[in-house]
Amino acid sequence: MSAGDDSPRVVALAGGVGGAKLAHGLALTGLGERLSVVVNTGDDFTLYGLHISPDLDTVLYTLGGLANPETGWGVAGDTLITHEMLGEYGIETWFMLGDKDLATHILRTERLRNGDSLSEIMGDLAQGLGINARLLPMTDDPVATKLATDAGLLDFQEYFVRRRHGDDVHRIEFDGIDAARLPEPVGAALDSADVIVICPSNPFVSVDPILAVPGLRERMLASPAPVVAVSPIIGGAAVKGPAAQMLASLGHDVSAAGVAAYYREFVDVMVIDTVDKNLAGDVEALGMTVAVTDTLMQSDADRRALAAFTLEVGRSQRLARAG
Amino acid sequence: MSAGDDSPRVVALAGGVGGAKLAHGLALTGLGERLSVVVNTGDDFTLYGLHISPDLDTVLYTLGGLANPETGWGVAGDTLITHEMLGEYGIETWFMLGDKDLATHILRTERLRNGDSLSEIMGDLAQGLGINARLLPMTDDPVATKLATDAGLLDFQEYFVRRRHGDDVHRIEFDGIDAARLPEPVGAALDSADVIVICPSNPFVSVDPILAVPGLRERMLASPAPVVAVSPIIGGAAVKGPAAQMLASLGHDVSAAGVAAYYREFVDVMVIDTVDKNLAGDVEALGMTVAVTDTLMQSDADRRALAAFTLEVGRSQRLARAG
Repeated sequence: MSAGDDSPRVVALAGGVGGAKLAHGLALTGLGERLSVVVNTGDDFTLYGLHISPDLDTVLYTLGGLANPETGWGVAGDTLITHEMLGEYGIETWFMLGDKDLATHILRTERLRNGDSLSEIMGDLAQGLGINARLLPMTDDPVATKLATDAGLLDFQEYFVRRRHGDDVHRIEFDGIDAARLPEPVGAALDSADVIVICPSNPFVSVDPILAVPGLRERMLASPAPVVAVSPIIGGAAVKGPAAQMLASLGHDVSAAGVAAYYREFVDVMVIDTVDKNLAGDVEALGMTVAVTDTLMQSDADRRALAAFTLEVGRSQRLARAG
Repeated sequence: MSAGDDSPRVVALAGGVGGAKLAHGLALTGLGERLSVVVNTGDDFTLYGLHISPDLDTVLYTLGGLANPETGWGVAGDTLITHEMLGEYGIETWFMLGDKDLATHILRTERLRNGDSLSEIMGDLAQGLGINARLLPMTDDPVATKLATDAGLLDFQEYFVRRRHGDDVHRIEFDGIDAARLPEPVGAALDSADVIVICPSNPFVSVDPILAVPGLRERMLASPAPVVAVSPIIGGAAVKGPAAQMLASLGHDVSAAGVAAYYREFVDVMVIDTVDKNLAGDVEALGMTVAVTDTLMQSDADRRALAAFTLEVGRSQRLARAG
């Protein structure tokens, strides 16, 4: 699918499942390669010597139409044959690696060792799955999200998978972020964007690491494109994952308005759910435009509708600025 | 299963399928850790960044009771999910890697990168599968078997798998063999052996690389143990693989007697099949003892019977020397 010249150039910042769903919706509106999805790599880690990129792969599989609809991550219908054999050897297997999923990790790891960049590799994998959108890691350099909890400073997967995000998080660090370089295609996509979308991903462990890549936030703010964020909090709860618990433990209001307040320095339009329409005044009081719609994405049609709504509010904002 | 002190200490030199079957037969006689299987690593190669050791794994799976009875290699009931996904990405997949099999390659590769030796790793994998015998790589250093053919100098897997061993082989090289070190446990096993068995493996690409590890042949010849070889050729044909074709193209008689002639400088007893009993005189004329039995291993009972026969002829030879 190739997009016409009148389609907007869209940059979406995304983490895992929620971000992947909206990115998929944006792709379904027919943006083709005018859609660039910039993805968090702070959750990347090494397992059995393989380089795993959970968020990139969730976006990859979702845009490629392979994602497991039950979990939102992994490949639909995947098996755990290798995983079980690792267990036979007495290896501790707390992170589930599906067999189809393993192909991705094996290819990525081989190519990284051969000196290819994560950006090049993910581009080729996306192309291999017939994806037109541009799948862009936030950086090709290693960044590791760490969480300060009562149980100590935890690696992301330790916190998220092994301990099932049960610990209160008091502080978050992005190891390596100071040395992380902004890939040229990410900067260029921001410069030429018509709309920048912050997907309904976790603000602290999905969106913040992307914004912390040196230069990225500045390029986003310097871009003439309006920044539209979709709240990951609906009715005071996260659709998935620990965003609500983190808002609380980090001292924020556990609501779409709390997310808006956290984003107020760089977001122009906040999209909140219909169930939260009573919060519209609080969000506007932060100096933002607010847009209300149904944001729960339970079907491809939901994804496409939310994406179209988001693009439309971005377009209105752009016109309002121009006018 | 632990062996009594009256069990012989046995060293078996083995390549792939045929060697693994006799090694399994030897294990079935109850030798426990008194059995050391020294395995060819000249076929080892790297695929998708993973270190593959085809012969070691065939012996590992066979002794561990996991081997695919149809093929003789790979894991019984294994699937090809990752393999097929690699194909989805457009990767050329001429070497079939099963999903259970992949667990072995992943663990081995990770540990090699962490600096562990192949010997340590294979020992742990064997232990993980409940194997009592000692599984010993011929060396921990890289050795690569190359075959000179009319199509050029081919890597082993290129010749064997990709081109289905269809080329005539004119010369064989073992790249890296001069720098390959004999692992201490292999030398020690040879020094203290009561019987050394050369399994019915390909003489040129399975047994020769083992014997070419500097010091190994000398330690074998210096050992007081008789060397008993089982012919891989029965009735002028190989049970499996290109041994017969190689005997011909390398200028040897395509028979058990041809193998005996090739082995005459270091083998004391040659075990040949009942169908080849008319060759007994030719083998004796080489100055070897000859022993005739049914050598085709179609069942575990066959494996055990051939192993017991081989040990018995080794014992007789030892007693004859002592007497």
